[in-house]
Amino acid sequence: MRKPYVIGIDIGGQSTKAGVVDARGNILVQTTFDSRDIDTLQGYLDTLTETLNKLINSAQVGGKDNVGGIGIGAPNGNYYKGTIEDAPNLKWAKDAAGNTRVVYLKEDVEKAMGLPVVVTNDANAAAQGEMIYGAAKGMKNFIEITLGTGVGSGIVIDGKVVYGHDGFAGELGHTTSIRRTGRQCNCGKIGCLETYASAIGLARTARELLEIDPQRPSLLRSLTADDITSKDVAEAAAKGDELSVEVFAFTGRLLGEAFADFVAFSAPEAIVLFGGLAQAGDLIFEPTIRAMEDNLLSIWKGKVKVIPSQLPGSEAAILGSAALAWEL
Amino acid sequence: MRKPYVIGIDIGGQSTKAGVVDARGNILVQTTFDSRDIDTLQGYLDTLTETLNKLINSAQVGGKDNVGGIGIGAPNGNYYKGTIEDAPNLKWAKDAAGNTRVVYLKEDVEKAMGLPVVVTNDANAAAQGEMIYGAAKGMKNFIEITLGTGVGSGIVIDGKVVYGHDGFAGELGHTTSIRRTGRQCNCGKIGCLETYASAIGLARTARELLEIDPQRPSLLRSLTADDITSKDVAEAAAKGDELSVEVFAFTGRLLGEAFADFVAFSAPEAIVLFGGLAQAGDLIFEPTIRAMEDNLLSIWKGKVKVIPSQLPGSEAAILGSAALAWEL
Repeated sequence: MRKPYVIGIDIGGQSTKAGVVDARGNILVQTTFDSRDIDTLQGYLDTLTETLNKLINSAQVGGKDNVGGIGIGAPNGNYYKGTIEDAPNLKWAKDAAGNTRVVYLKEDVEKAMGLPVVVTNDANAAAQGEMIYGAAKGMKNFIEITLGTGVGSGIVIDGKVVYGHDGFAGELGHTTSIRRTGRQCNCGKIGCLETYASAIGLARTARELLEIDPQRPSLLRSLTADDITSKDVAEAAAKGDELSVEVFAFTGRLLGEAFADFVAFSAPEAIVLFGGLAQAGDLIFEPTIRAMEDNLLSIWKGKVKVIPSQLPGSEAAILGSAALAWEL
Repeated sequence: MRKPYVIGIDIGGQSTKAGVVDARGNILVQTTFDSRDIDTLQGYLDTLTETLNKLINSAQVGGKDNVGGIGIGAPNGNYYKGTIEDAPNLKWAKDAAGNTRVVYLKEDVEKAMGLPVVVTNDANAAAQGEMIYGAAKGMKNFIEITLGTGVGSGIVIDGKVVYGHDGFAGELGHTTSIRRTGRQCNCGKIGCLETYASAIGLARTARELLEIDPQRPSLLRSLTADDITSKDVAEAAAKGDELSVEVFAFTGRLLGEAFADFVAFSAPEAIVLFGGLAQAGDLIFEPTIRAMEDNLLSIWKGKVKVIPSQLPGSEAAILGSAALAWEL
């Protein structure tokens, strides 16, 4: 018989969130621990295990026996291998010399918890969550784009998240709509979508526009240029700040051009936008949709939806990872 | 019990090819008819039916009862709907006023032949054939790129050709690695991959290079510029003509840059090149692979094969369509 609960875990650079979830997507209990000061893998696993055991007890679901498995979303998580590979933002995933190493997370957590574990990256987890609990409920073909510090993606075809030959499929933030003259990406490439359409990329666009014409008025000029965040730009744009609106228009244009190429690949029913920038509403959706439509083949014009995620913000990551665990 | 034979049909602008194929990919008999002078749908269907009935008789396989079904690869063929939509090069698929119309090919051929029919586009058929009989045998994740008059693609994920939400997935020839300053495509967009990496695009690049520097020597100067074909360029390049080698290098670079984005989408084990240009060997493979590698995320560097099709040229289209029919 299928067990009635699963655990969803979201591993981030700063902290780890975990929750006990039922089949309808209700999070019974959840918790967070700060991982910034944990600098060894064993230290991390010990804290995680202790946290999960306490969490299961506090959920009062009859203990581990009623938990079907654990889904983990993590940076560079690999679905096939159950590993985290080359994740520069996780201090505990580095060796003593500070180099990234392969963390056999599935194996380690299964051993520690005695429950089956599935690992994927955060964007794939979000896509899985969107399909089971969110805006893509009932859809078989869609693309989830996560607009956060970076740009991630989870691609769903025929009702299944695409992992590809090696488990790393869906790195659409590192497709390059702008080459040569584009921005340097952390990944080493030039002009990746992520360097423009992420929160960091958008703030950088704002700084560039402020610099290009120092006489141009903008609400953003009251801030120190280096401190400007995407949130500041969104707030200024909401107040009608012309320069800030232009930042969103530029970002949306690049995003929409890229989306047209994604549609040519997998012909999705919808592209779902998840994360901070997606909350800017029309400011980002309107220019994105316009640029996508301008660049679509005629067979797709007016037919592909671009919609906001319906996963509840603070709980989305847990729900996404939990959604994976139902496959176990 | 599964029937021992299928029919594969390849519909092109000039002619239609059909063959009776066994499960090992042997074409028992095949035939071709010229369709250039057929200007009504009924006329086309009558000729096709007559041709197929003769073909089945000549194959001496015990008649229709031993044929499991018919697979058809056609321009703009739609797998879900069984239609051909908006195919400007098929005279018989237009109405009296010369406008393209929707042809309900599956329905019409099923009625005429009394056999189940499956329709897809030619690139998807090639991908299916490659997986069953060709270079992708045993692979679950690969991308077939057809380099012909246009650039087509068939994407295989988890052992299945991707059709997407509407049956039109895999139009990678119309992704746009070069925008704004790019070439005008027949589809109406600017800078589509097809305008550079097709046979026509490659010949155009040659003409452009000849024009830019009228003093530059080239074997191609013995030809009338407007008559230069991709085959001429390949022959000149094979003889060491520097300008022609540069044409292939340029074409390969754009192709390889595009491939890096395709890899970021579906993380394939291989990209298989099919069609005329693919036969240019190192001339096209070497610059393509170099550009792809330069643009891949580090997790994929050195890991994705770019290989030539192993479907026998003249029979590939029939085998590809036949491969589809085994699903019936």
